[in-house]
Amino acid sequence: MKRIGMLTSGGDCQALNAAMRGVVKTLLNSDEQVEIYGFLDGYRGLIYSNFQMLTGRDFSGILTKGGTILGTSRTPFKTIQDPDENGLNKVEAMKQNYYKLKLDCLVILGGNGTHKTANLLREEGLNVVTLPKTIDNDLWGTDMTFGFQSAVNIATEAIDCIHTTAASHGRVFIVEVMGHKVGWLTLNAGMASGADIILVPEIPYDIDKVIQKIEERDKNGSRFTIIAVAEGAISKEDAKLSKKELKKKMESCTHPSVSYELAERIQKKTGREVRVTVPGHTQRGGSPCPYDRVFASRLGAEAGRLILEGQYGFMVGYKNREIVRVPLEDVAGKLKYLSPDASIVQEAKLLGISFGD
Amino acid sequence: MKRIGMLTSGGDCQALNAAMRGVVKTLLNSDEQVEIYGFLDGYRGLIYSNFQMLTGRDFSGILTKGGTILGTSRTPFKTIQDPDENGLNKVEAMKQNYYKLKLDCLVILGGNGTHKTANLLREEGLNVVTLPKTIDNDLWGTDMTFGFQSAVNIATEAIDCIHTTAASHGRVFIVEVMGHKVGWLTLNAGMASGADIILVPEIPYDIDKVIQKIEERDKNGSRFTIIAVAEGAISKEDAKLSKKELKKKMESCTHPSVSYELAERIQKKTGREVRVTVPGHTQRGGSPCPYDRVFASRLGAEAGRLILEGQYGFMVGYKNREIVRVPLEDVAGKLKYLSPDASIVQEAKLLGISFGD
Amino acid sequence: MKRIGMLTSGGDCQALNAAMRGVVKTLLNSDEQVEIYGFLDGYRGLIYSNFQMLTGRDFSGILTKGGTILGTSRTPFKTIQDPDENGLNKVEAMKQNYYKLKLDCLVILGGNGTHKTANLLREEGLNVVTLPKTIDNDLWGTDMTFGFQSAVNIATEAIDCIHTTAASHGRVFIVEVMGHKVGWLTLNAGMASGADIILVPEIPYDIDKVIQKIEERDKNGSRFTIIAVAEGAISKEDAKLSKKELKKKMESCTHPSVSYELAERIQKKTGREVRVTVPGHTQRGGSPCPYDRVFASRLGAEAGRLILEGQYGFMVGYKNREIVRVPLEDVAGKLKYLSPDASIVQEAKLLGISFGD
Amino acid sequence: MKRIGMLTSGGDCQALNAAMRGVVKTLLNSDEQVEIYGFLDGYRGLIYSNFQMLTGRDFSGILTKGGTILGTSRTPFKTIQDPDENGLNKVEAMKQNYYKLKLDCLVILGGNGTHKTANLLREEGLNVVTLPKTIDNDLWGTDMTFGFQSAVNIATEAIDCIHTTAASHGRVFIVEVMGHKVGWLTLNAGMASGADIILVPEIPYDIDKVIQKIEERDKNGSRFTIIAVAEGAISKEDAKLSKKELKKKMESCTHPSVSYELAERIQKKTGREVRVTVPGHTQRGGSPCPYDRVFASRLGAEAGRLILEGQYGFMVGYKNREIVRVPLEDVAGKLKYLSPDASIVQEAKLLGISFGD
Repeated sequence: MKRIGMLTSGGDCQALNAAMRGVVKTLLNSDEQVEIYGFLDGYRGLIYSNFQMLTGRDFSGILTKGGTILGTSRTPFKTIQDPDENGLNKVEAMKQNYYKLKLDCLVILGGNGTHKTANLLREEGLNVVTLPKTIDNDLWGTDMTFGFQSAVNIATEAIDCIHTTAASHGRVFIVEVMGHKVGWLTLNAGMASGADIILVPEIPYDIDKVIQKIEERDKNGSRFTIIAVAEGAISKEDAKLSKKELKKKMESCTHPSVSYELAERIQKKTGREVRVTVPGHTQRGGSPCPYDRVFASRLGAEAGRLILEGQYGFMVGYKNREIVRVPLEDVAGKLKYLSPDASIVQEAKLLGISFGD
Repeated sequence: MKRIGMLTSGGDCQALNAAMRGVVKTLLNSDEQVEIYGFLDGYRGLIYSNFQMLTGRDFSGILTKGGTILGTSRTPFKTIQDPDENGLNKVEAMKQNYYKLKLDCLVILGGNGTHKTANLLREEGLNVVTLPKTIDNDLWGTDMTFGFQSAVNIATEAIDCIHTTAASHGRVFIVEVMGHKVGWLTLNAGMASGADIILVPEIPYDIDKVIQKIEERDKNGSRFTIIAVAEGAISKEDAKLSKKELKKKMESCTHPSVSYELAERIQKKTGREVRVTVPGHTQRGGSPCPYDRVFASRLGAEAGRLILEGQYGFMVGYKNREIVRVPLEDVAGKLKYLSPDASIVQEAKLLGISFGD
Repeated sequence: MKRIGMLTSGGDCQALNAAMRGVVKTLLNSDEQVEIYGFLDGYRGLIYSNFQMLTGRDFSGILTKGGTILGTSRTPFKTIQDPDENGLNKVEAMKQNYYKLKLDCLVILGGNGTHKTANLLREEGLNVVTLPKTIDNDLWGTDMTFGFQSAVNIATEAIDCIHTTAASHGRVFIVEVMGHKVGWLTLNAGMASGADIILVPEIPYDIDKVIQKIEERDKNGSRFTIIAVAEGAISKEDAKLSKKELKKKMESCTHPSVSYELAERIQKKTGREVRVTVPGHTQRGGSPCPYDRVFASRLGAEAGRLILEGQYGFMVGYKNREIVRVPLEDVAGKLKYLSPDASIVQEAKLLGISFGD
Repeated sequence: MKRIGMLTSGGDCQALNAAMRGVVKTLLNSDEQVEIYGFLDGYRGLIYSNFQMLTGRDFSGILTKGGTILGTSRTPFKTIQDPDENGLNKVEAMKQNYYKLKLDCLVILGGNGTHKTANLLREEGLNVVTLPKTIDNDLWGTDMTFGFQSAVNIATEAIDCIHTTAASHGRVFIVEVMGHKVGWLTLNAGMASGADIILVPEIPYDIDKVIQKIEERDKNGSRFTIIAVAEGAISKEDAKLSKKELKKKMESCTHPSVSYELAERIQKKTGREVRVTVPGHTQRGGSPCPYDRVFASRLGAEAGRLILEGQYGFMVGYKNREIVRVPLEDVAGKLKYLSPDASIVQEAKLLGISFGD
């Protein structure tokens, strides 16, 4: 008999349901008796004992469904150890609920912040297995996260749409792509949609180089330029600021996001009409793409296998095309950045894409 | 022998190429000899004699291609009669180029502004046939415009994506849909994606009614609310302002668009987390949907037929499922609004959708 | 208090769920108390009293879901009046179950056969409201049926895919499109995807004209030809046969469908490589397109209104862009064919499309 | 100065254009002078000196375009060394044309057969660089081929569509997926679409196990079963036959493909209604998915780099997430099969998928 708690935490993304279905199908197909407790809205459900008993039926037909049937919430790691507004010790509450329900294990699906908390619970003695969920693909210890490829598809489709308008009007178009502090999503969507300039956080850009590329294209008869900008992209000047100075600068900024400031600078320097599009939250929604459905199902199956084997304290990851088990303590608190020297960056440059560096 | 000038003007949209292909295929399949002059970037090409001779080959394979192979530009009707920066009389320049090339007819694809100018050229004695292009579906004299259904699809897909995130996080989500001053696009995309509240320019909204609907849903256990807002939506208070007062108010507003102000008001009054998504220009880009491809091809074929018959001064439109010829003077300068009493609005209300009225 | 029975019959299609949701939302938003009995698997559920009580929750989130939550089956009209294998009088059984449950009305969603049975039940004294479901768009009394536009999209996408292969290999490609005995689906998908030849049941084709078109394209340097063939397409020779002769001929035919015989004939006469693709059942599956979601929701809302008004014996249809009520006796047993003189056929011919006539 | 010949051979697939664009962009962005000769319709163009001089402009805007701008044809390796119908020695002809045009290198895009011929040309002394194109993913020496992920998407979409129909009608549905003699495509599309049974060539199936799974599902209340069958799937009995016996059996078979025989057997043994769908050539057509666009572009860039470095005799492949150079002699003539022990097969089984073994 296995009693499993399950929760999804952080921003939602595609294939969360597919991954959970994978875990549950694997458990139910085993000889083991299984009880599944679904905690609602992330860690909050575990803290306040808000859960539902789930059966195989609840996981049927959700392979292709976006979002998460358990609901999710952002519970920042920074505050998880603080007492809540009623003075409740949240970590203690989670432990108590875990023991009260006599759980054998918690299955936790989430991104960076989620993994820090998961590791904390592991350190506190709870059995934990995690799954790497994020459209940002920034989790350390795995080559790939689910949600990423689906988000690439949506961002690419957005830039594809913009392409026809940009070409028809002869404009400079900036499309702001998600990805938090890393450039994976922007780079892939930019390459897939034939962006001319790609700006990512890991490669601070020189505005003059950006403008130079636009003007080069003008000279070669290309009427338009498409710029894919990561939401975390940063200019060379800003990259030199201290964290404090940067924060101050951003607070005083009236632009809703990084793209608008960039647009203004390009417009001023070139006199060209520049437009900004921000696909925003659409990037984390909708049905997962086939790649993510297969990938999340496989990770989920392996998580199920870990539980059946009684192996806890691991994130299920993906390394060199193999499903692997990564110790949670190795994952927590680390970001997987795109290296400016990565092979994919070099190939993008061979194709003539400018990174503004 | 027919010598045809062709141009696309105003914001680009889907199926412009399909429509032009329809005209050209029809002409080339006739016994008539045909010469086609493609003016580049809208009326600008006609003013400054910037054109290319085109053959059937140029129109091959473009049925499914977004944008316009001729390029386009916004040349506001308000200024078309003013001399340009070098003192050139633009209307005279267009007439001269028309006569210099010995054109039999101009085929003009565009929306409202474009039709005003087209009608002006007709009044000046030029032969003109026009095609109703706009994602807004606001052209008088036709039940449908091409681009509209494709834009509905894109806006619907965006709201579909947002749906899973809204449901997972239990949030209020506002999606701002294009449509200029009319609500057709927002209403259709909103109904197609199951939006709970739809705000359109033709039905000024009462913020308290909007909030009431959100709270009703809360009470009924719906964790989230999706609001589809037309970019031209307006509150009851603002609808009472004079044009001048409204303009002043909007100039002093720091919000990038109508949705952000709405979000702020809802957030203040309900304490709920409200997010805004603006799909923006993606709505006019990408490959036209099958409906638009067929529709634009049919309109183009009829335009070709008009030219072969020497019938000028018409917009090709669509009425009661028939392709019709509408005198240009009846079209120019009029907008086709969504009536608050329209059957589709009543049906939306039966379905439980709130218009905030 | 209203007690409503509901069933879906015949081949499934897109937007069945959207339509049912429209009916139910309208009823539940009214002041009337409502009980909903969902009969499973079409008329079979009504005959054998196989049903479920349904609530608003069952219809939540199904707007975008393909198929039918009630299940469906083909119960041919021809046999509905015959006793079943146990000697049960099926019509009597339906009546008894209707009265036993004290139903006020049956809401029946289906195509041609379904409407004949619905009309029979009306004649037997039951209150019936119907909704026009079919990807074939062949229902008399309505300009449009739901499912149609979604099927057009899928068939178009299939031909789009084939297009690139045909062009790359320089082949003749036949794509067989559904549509039963009418050509609406094939004509629209063919026009949307730029098919060169479109063969529909209403316009018997001359194989020599088909070949002539292929050879013309060859001469003009087009390496490939795309033929969209309706599953019910027929050659001029076969059209002259009596029903009996035709049946005999088809029984002796070893080809799985009409396209393969056509392929063989073209291959023999031209020596060209001809390939056949049959998208088949995919055309009736998957999420409904936005057009169908809006359209089916509107029809459903009107059906709800009919019930609230106690108006029975109607199919809800669509005429000249208005939702209308069509007496069931006018609908039953009639097919809506594509006229060879229809404006859309003429426009297709202007575009250079051959119908082989 | 580099003079490059380029050709695409074998069945077309998605991202061929993206890959060629990658090669050409890389060459044109270098300091080297470059001339590009595009041979038409595969090796045939090289044999009969049918080519076009191409410039950067020809490769602009083709990133998202399916098919191949060069055309392709199947020239079976078995016959490439035989003289043609006029007695021409084809291999000699290719060599002569290569030397006549003073080419520095041939860039050849293709699958298995293509690579055998490419290796033959290498052995004959020509400089060759190849790119791994196939939806089958069966090329030895690379973890991935372009076209594969796009084909997975199309096959998955087809099964998704079938899913709603199968569920609505309570049927057994067989979807036949491409993939030649290997199971990669079927396995991935089957897992992505939630197929219940997946039959691949590498794991011969036992018809009784297949039926057992269907009946198990019946017992558990699942009204339908989806079977994804590879076009090369084989039963245990047939797998025991000698090649000659198998050939004889297949020649005497009247079924158009493997799925129809399977359907018949299931229908006979279970009495269930079984339907077959064959998406066929649609699986290799249409716009490449973002994954393939990025992947093919990267491979193309690396091929360009090889040429600039004067490194010949390699296929550009992908190993452990790195772009690699694989000696052609290691690739030619070998197939990359799916191992029955592969981790992905084990995970599929954990999820409850039956392989009929």
